[in-house]
Parts: sequence; C-alpha cells; structure tokens
Amino acid sequence: MSIHPQIIADTVPLCETTNAAILLMNDSRWPWVVLVPTVADINELHDLTHEQRNQFMADVNQVSRVVQHQTGCKSVNVAMLGNIVSQLHCHVVARNETDPAWPGPVWGFGLAVAYDNNWPDRLITALRKSFT
Amino acid sequence: MSIHPQIIADTVPLCETTNAAILLMNDSRWPWVVLVPTVADINELHDLTHEQRNQFMADVNQVSRVVQHQTGCKSVNVAMLGNIVSQLHCHVVARNETDPAWPGPVWGFGLAVAYDNNWPDRLITALRKSFT
Repeated sequence: MSIHPQIIADTVPLCETTNAAILLMNDSRWPWVVLVPTVADINELHDLTHEQRNQFMADVNQVSRVVQHQTGCKSVNVAMLGNIVSQLHCHVVARNETDPAWPGPVWGFGLAVAYDNNWPDRLITALRKSFT
Repeated sequence: MSIHPQIIADTVPLCETTNAAILLMNDSRWPWVVLVPTVADINELHDLTHEQRNQFMADVNQVSRVVQHQTGCKSVNVAMLGNIVSQLHCHVVARNETDPAWPGPVWGFGLAVAYDNNWPDRLITALRKSFT
C-alpha cells in the first residue's frame, strides 16, 4: 500500500506502527500529525474492518494524547476529511486560542509555513518513543 | 451527563445508543450528524477509556456508513474539533463537489440554513432504524 504523493510532499515521516504510518506536517504554524492506515488502501473510516478501525483509532488516540501532553494545547483536532486527498488519513492538530485560525479550522487556512531550524524536536522524540 | 446547550440549540435529536446521543444539525446545506458520548463528560477523544472509545467509534462508523449509503456523497468528513464547544462531540458530514464549501471545511463557513419542509426524512429514518 502506498501513501498518496500529496501527503508525502506535505510531511516528514515520524514512525510506523503495525497499522499506520505516522507523519508530521511540515507546517510550523501548528503541531500537526497525520496518520495513514497501512493495512488497506481505502477512502473512508467505515471501509476499515472492525479490528482495523480499533487498531487505527488506538494509534490516533496515542498521538492525540502525546500531542496534548507535549504541547499543553487547548484542544486537539482529530479529523478525517478526504476532500482533497481521498486516501483515508487522520489529522491530529494541536490548537490554541492564540493560533492564527482559532477557533476556525486549519484546513484551507492560508499557506503552510515550513519548519526552518525550529522543528518540534521534543514532540517528535516523544511521539517516536511512545510507539517503540 | 448533559449535552452542551450550544449543541442542543443547533440540532434535533435522532436517537440514543448506549454510548452516545445522535443528533442532526439543523443546517440544510449538508447532511450533518453529530454524536456526543453520553458515558463521560470529557473534552478529548483520548479522555475516553479504551472500551468507551471503541464503542463510540463504532457508533461514529455506523453513522458514517449510513450517511454515505443514503446520500451517495463523495466523501464523509469525520471530525472532533472542540474549539468552540469543548465537550467531546464528533461531526459526520456528507460532502460533495457541488456543495458550497467544497473542498474546504464546513466549520465556520457562512451561516446555517435551517431546514424548512425539506428535512432529510429518508436519512433520518435510515439512521434511526440502523440503531434499533
């Protein structure tokens, strides 16, 4: 199963679980993780089997927990949209009242600001560690 | 556990499962269902226990499946945001290339257009039936 080229272009890989590839969006405006299930090439959450869904959502859940713990964000946005890239993928985004799109959604908001020398190293390390 | 007044104001109730209240957004621009877990008064998906999460996501999954089957939509948006109403709730929205916000997100897009005599009766019936 291959990951859609648009997702590859927008992200850097963090780690892989038995169920999913976990990637960091190269957008320094928000700590923003994307998970792509690697068990099946599908478009919708309900296309996963019961077991695949529970495993994928367990990974999503773990990313969400680590993101909130590491960033102290006000809320975590967890979303599977698929309007632009149809391959099923789940966004996990740390949101704060001070972020530029708050309280609106991040999708379609302005342009990504690529990381320079300001990669969120602590978050990256914590995410990778949590899946080992 | 009570449902946030803003969610109550924006929706009509469809049915209840052992895990969640299922409501229809009173916005005729999109078939749009909201699920609120009734097992716990929490803000984030990762605040649910493992079992609560699997049960809640099973309900979300079923709503997503029925929504796509009944509407024939291009994609189903499944999202837990919590920026405006912090109580955990999950949006399930039928999206099409002809809808006014496509391919952008529906949240914060214009104003809701309340149903008049055009309630999506077939979808409502199918959703209720699927949970009985």
